[in-house]
Amino acid sequence: MKIKHWAEVEEQQAEGLEGVTVRWVINDGDGAPHFAMRVFDVQPGRSTPYHNHWWEHEVYVLKGEGMVVQESGETSISSGSVILVEGDEMHQFRNTGDQVFRFICLIPFQWLEGLAQAHA
Amino acid sequence: MKIKHWAEVEEQQAEGLEGVTVRWVINDGDGAPHFAMRVFDVQPGRSTPYHNHWWEHEVYVLKGEGMVVQESGETSISSGSVILVEGDEMHQFRNTGDQVFRFICLIPFQWLEGLAQAHA
Repeated sequence: MKIKHWAEVEEQQAEGLEGVTVRWVINDGDGAPHFAMRVFDVQPGRSTPYHNHWWEHEVYVLKGEGMVVQESGETSISSGSVILVEGDEMHQFRNTGDQVFRFICLIPFQWLEGLAQAHA
Repeated sequence: MKIKHWAEVEEQQAEGLEGVTVRWVINDGDGAPHFAMRVFDVQPGRSTPYHNHWWEHEVYVLKGEGMVVQESGETSISSGSVILVEGDEMHQFRNTGDQVFRFICLIPFQWLEGLAQAHA
């Protein structure tokens, strides 16, 4: 078992993203076999990239006011919002408030790529 | 993409556990391919069972004061605590406060059983 507080985990600058940091609070190095938990902090006026990739996101918003962007439009989200971004979907998370926008975001490990489709 | 608020999701009585409810906020029916997100509410004086199973838990505590129990002892946890319960580990979550103890708990889907070991 691993027990920690999210804020104890090293805060890393998200690569190429000014005003966005990530903490990998549960990762394979902790013994997680299938998926990782990260905590993101997005500063006011900042956002994650509008992009896509094979893996899904499972997101829970902890704090602040933001927007999730998809091809069909934008949706306001805040503390307690839950978002599933499916594999290959375009998506972006924006801070639209005046305080930090903080969310948990879980992703599967790379070795799972394609296995869900093969299983279905 | 699925966007919802955790509290909109139907609250279910956890089977055989008085004072414990669960909301499956992201599940396979939403299109999640690998793992599910649940939100548990444990009432004061109540707890989840002391048990184990093949799958891991990735937990983030949202609210309240509690204790996580493992074979080696008990650890106090509260808002912002992060816990990885590894597969087969004995574990229990107890509410030790006077308000609701609320946490997110993620689990892999059944079809992943044994694949991580085979992959490692």
